[in-house]
Amino acid sequence: MRVLSGMRPTGRLHLGHYHGVLVNWLKLQTEYECFFFAADWHALTTDYADPKGIKENVREMVLDWLSVGIDPKRTIIFRQSQIKEHAELHVLLSMITPLSWLERNPTYKEQLGELREKDLHTFGFLGYPVLQTADIIIYKAQKVPVGVDQAPHLELSREITRRFNHFYGQVFPEPQTILTETPKVLGTDGRKMSKSYNNAIFLSDPPQEAEKKMLAMMTDTARKRRTDAGNPGLCPFYQTYHALYSDAKTVAWVKEGCAAAGIGCTDCKKAVIPKVLALLEPIRKKRSELEADPAIVEAILKDGARCAFEAANKTMREVRAAMGLE
Amino acid sequence: MRVLSGMRPTGRLHLGHYHGVLVNWLKLQTEYECFFFAADWHALTTDYADPKGIKENVREMVLDWLSVGIDPKRTIIFRQSQIKEHAELHVLLSMITPLSWLERNPTYKEQLGELREKDLHTFGFLGYPVLQTADIIIYKAQKVPVGVDQAPHLELSREITRRFNHFYGQVFPEPQTILTETPKVLGTDGRKMSKSYNNAIFLSDPPQEAEKKMLAMMTDTARKRRTDAGNPGLCPFYQTYHALYSDAKTVAWVKEGCAAAGIGCTDCKKAVIPKVLALLEPIRKKRSELEADPAIVEAILKDGARCAFEAANKTMREVRAAMGLE
Repeated sequence: MRVLSGMRPTGRLHLGHYHGVLVNWLKLQTEYECFFFAADWHALTTDYADPKGIKENVREMVLDWLSVGIDPKRTIIFRQSQIKEHAELHVLLSMITPLSWLERNPTYKEQLGELREKDLHTFGFLGYPVLQTADIIIYKAQKVPVGVDQAPHLELSREITRRFNHFYGQVFPEPQTILTETPKVLGTDGRKMSKSYNNAIFLSDPPQEAEKKMLAMMTDTARKRRTDAGNPGLCPFYQTYHALYSDAKTVAWVKEGCAAAGIGCTDCKKAVIPKVLALLEPIRKKRSELEADPAIVEAILKDGARCAFEAANKTMREVRAAMGLE
Repeated sequence: MRVLSGMRPTGRLHLGHYHGVLVNWLKLQTEYECFFFAADWHALTTDYADPKGIKENVREMVLDWLSVGIDPKRTIIFRQSQIKEHAELHVLLSMITPLSWLERNPTYKEQLGELREKDLHTFGFLGYPVLQTADIIIYKAQKVPVGVDQAPHLELSREITRRFNHFYGQVFPEPQTILTETPKVLGTDGRKMSKSYNNAIFLSDPPQEAEKKMLAMMTDTARKRRTDAGNPGLCPFYQTYHALYSDAKTVAWVKEGCAAAGIGCTDCKKAVIPKVLALLEPIRKKRSELEADPAIVEAILKDGARCAFEAANKTMREVRAAMGLE
């Protein structure tokens, strides 16, 4: 059983990526044949006006993948733009994809609304799901891990796949969803953790820095003084760190202590910060080792590209034959 | 100076292609470095539902190119789908191409109206000019021969090129138009000569068949009897064959004789048919020679693909570097 998943290269990864994606990937790679790729062409759909950092962002991201334990010995790690066959299949799929399917795609409409500071009324942004479909089915991936919010995208991929098979014969399996949980990971300002909000704790942050950020993180804003009672349900720190890292006993201690003003925010934070640092420590250590060999990421991506090309090219031979092009 | 031009593979070519395109190509290849390609991906924009014949159509078309004298020794002849880099550049250009530019493209709107029996509301059909732009600029072609009706398409290519250069630096020259005359070539039923109208005289028709078709061709429909006076201005045969093949003396003789009912339609036709057959004879002969070697078209296309790849890949290296992808 083959699984495909990709991430847009935005540079160094943070705890949001870790809990939202990488934890899943680590599990998936023990159960399936996995293809994980850096979606550098996809990054262009929104960042076409200034793509200069993409290559470095790919490198930083892949370093983090490797640091958390994504294993190039068992998993194929590659860059989308190094497999031209994705683009070839994208052209072919574009011919059979009704415009209306893309225009009614909820994520498309949503993002047009959200990212107002960028001009996303481009042909490529509209066609994002077509390229994504090519990414998936070119490896005949049967499973794709997605969060609930991306499920409509994968439904669109299945529709395009069915249409291809309808016209040209049963070439592709329909990719199925592995619904993944995406726990809430909030940044230091209480908003969703995101590099662009400048509120993230990066996997590669030195421990002092990570600790400092967590200690400075927003808590229940209604609890103004140490002597005020707090509400963990309104506290972004609690919702992120205690929810993800603390055992039941600590959680009970925090809930009680906070509600009764028995503990202060710093006490509360110090009870969990060591656990976060303990998670980050081996990641950071692995990263230092990897960084000692500046050629290693390139070498792994090259090796991955070779394997990915082999699989993609095999599929494309079938595709070209099915369509009468070869 | 480099020229690029392509034709959609529709199979064997007819006199309409000869006078509309090939005469120009024969001239261009003596003056410029030419890249002529079989646009098999483009054929899918309208024929995606039944593409089975494409490969054979490419072969037949290229045989005709060679038969009229397109010279693979001086000109690069290749198939679009064999150069994956067209698709790669298409993906990259799609990111910067505003949807509105494509939606307002007059050819797009026109064809949606004309080809009503096919569902052309696809992503690929809308993106036709993006792929066409990639086809042209990937070879840094400075000149593109186009008929008046396709001029807006090339203007769109120039706009996309300018936008690329604006974002990423001066990588591409803006392709310029070589406006070509496309003489009126009418089919046996008086409509535009077209394979799909079943009214065409093919370059590979045996002489007896070509002659028979021409003898049966529609003339001035108002001239019902031999004794009626005719009007060459209303006669599709005159407009096509005498206009293209006859000398001034013959033209005068026809005009006079037709208007005075001095000559019949068969007399009129017989005065020019030998000239048409004389044009077709060496083409047909060359074709027989080429057909004797079933591997020759493949070999020429393979050789062309090698040269085209070299040029396309050189450009793509610059493109990837300019965009920060490599």
